[in-house]
Amino acid sequence: MNEISPERAAFLAGDYCRGFIRYCRIEPEEIKRGYFQSRVIIGEDHRQQDGFIHAGVMATMADHTAGYAAFTLAPEDRQILTIEFKINFLRPAFGESLSCRSRIIREGSQILIAESEVFDKRGQDEVMAAKAMVTLMSVPKEKLLSKD
Amino acid sequence: MNEISPERAAFLAGDYCRGFIRYCRIEPEEIKRGYFQSRVIIGEDHRQQDGFIHAGVMATMADHTAGYAAFTLAPEDRQILTIEFKINFLRPAFGESLSCRSRIIREGSQILIAESEVFDKRGQDEVMAAKAMVTLMSVPKEKLLSKD
Amino acid sequence: MNEISPERAAFLAGDYCRGFIRYCRIEPEEIKRGYFQSRVIIGEDHRQQDGFIHAGVMATMADHTAGYAAFTLAPEDRQILTIEFKINFLRPAFGESLSCRSRIIREGSQILIAESEVFDKRGQDEVMAAKAMVTLMSVPKEKLLSKD
Amino acid sequence: MNEISPERAAFLAGDYCRGFIRYCRIEPEEIKRGYFQSRVIIGEDHRQQDGFIHAGVMATMADHTAGYAAFTLAPEDRQILTIEFKINFLRPAFGESLSCRSRIIREGSQILIAESEVFDKRGQDEVMAAKAMVTLMSVPKEKLLSKD
Repeated sequence: MNEISPERAAFLAGDYCRGFIRYCRIEPEEIKRGYFQSRVIIGEDHRQQDGFIHAGVMATMADHTAGYAAFTLAPEDRQILTIEFKINFLRPAFGESLSCRSRIIREGSQILIAESEVFDKRGQDEVMAAKAMVTLMSVPKEKLLSKD
Repeated sequence: MNEISPERAAFLAGDYCRGFIRYCRIEPEEIKRGYFQSRVIIGEDHRQQDGFIHAGVMATMADHTAGYAAFTLAPEDRQILTIEFKINFLRPAFGESLSCRSRIIREGSQILIAESEVFDKRGQDEVMAAKAMVTLMSVPKEKLLSKD
Repeated sequence: MNEISPERAAFLAGDYCRGFIRYCRIEPEEIKRGYFQSRVIIGEDHRQQDGFIHAGVMATMADHTAGYAAFTLAPEDRQILTIEFKINFLRPAFGESLSCRSRIIREGSQILIAESEVFDKRGQDEVMAAKAMVTLMSVPKEKLLSKD
Repeated sequence: MNEISPERAAFLAGDYCRGFIRYCRIEPEEIKRGYFQSRVIIGEDHRQQDGFIHAGVMATMADHTAGYAAFTLAPEDRQILTIEFKINFLRPAFGESLSCRSRIIREGSQILIAESEVFDKRGQDEVMAAKAMVTLMSVPKEKLLSKD
């Protein structure tokens, strides 16, 4: 399995954290062919009414990181869309950061399937807090519905 | 079917928008027994790299609003947890606001199941942009794992 | 919305119940554009260890009937594949028959999304026992991976 | 991690293949604590209209085998119910048998979460054809809704 070029990895790392993802302060951490890892340092803005990390933060990470795992396999003229995902919350998350590890388990030219595991980091320990399966579609950039 | 009290509705409306939800500027809009509706006015912070509204915003809304639809049915000494959800993205969202409508389709004393429909509002029109099924659990507040 | 031709409906009705579906005795009941309804009369072979109708019977119905709802919208030279589905079991089923109603909620040229509702028929009553969301793909018949 | 007793394993192996599962000829293959493996030798009755193994066979296996993986962890006076599952079909299956391997990834006293991987066996080779995430609930046997 050939590796992703340093230029492509750098491009994806920069492209990863824009808009809502930057607003959520989720950052790329490690990029390999078919794999993407991200993390977020938890602040008060990431929590819910009981003080736990909000499920929406984990879902957003799981989806977005899966999409960029797919980007590591797609030609540069393709865009990746999420068709759907499903996420199970295994246990409440309340640590100081989250790490999300996404890998592609089915690489098709059109349909890709990823698994994302979200780990809750508590000092030296980490536990899996959520796991998602994400169905993605690779489409030519010019076919992407324009919003204009 | 008896109605939710104005006091309970007011409490849930205030409780709804804390932490990550307030940060995302998602607000309650309508509360009925077994039903919760929310909305968010879209800013640049809600978008992704292509200018569309990020799937994570829709997933966060779909999850959180489903949880509060469950709260409208649960006794006041219960807490609601999301066990899992699945969301399909039906079409790209790019309008000026989103509306999420969640209703409970299975009311159990422990397990509740909700559907959340997220609509993309474009001027006078709206289209369903995403649909989720959410599995929730009602637990006594004192059993909720404390993070302390 | 134009209607499906009687010839196409008759073809889909016959095509519906082959192989595993015929073995499970699941039959077509009503066919409209974007909609397919099926039923199965329950025998001992459909039950599980506690006497309830097996979740696998409901999942098989929900998937297959969704696929044929998609066939009602697809050109005749296309094949329909299930990419994934998710099914919630709302309450135990133990009636004398099941009815499954599938409708397409997102009609794309490649990706179609269906909802399937499975009803448990108990004498004059029926209750929704399961609900599924199904992601389907329409592919040209000649592109379908041959097993030979 | 302590092991499952030979008596309990023998009981679960026998209990596994009743009703619809026996009808589908799905059989237990290996039982460990938190793990259950099953298989089915494919006949014409397991196929769909194109000759591939029907998605319903894989979904039924994935659900049922996950349930029995949960049984290996539950006290003997508990019953296991499937709350919901989601299954992705990674590639068409057409081999001579299927093997399903289910393991519990979250063991709670009430809620258990399993992953099931279904492999398509083609001579000496096998490929993963489907993967499911299954949410299960452990309930006291006496609380199980009686159908009588």
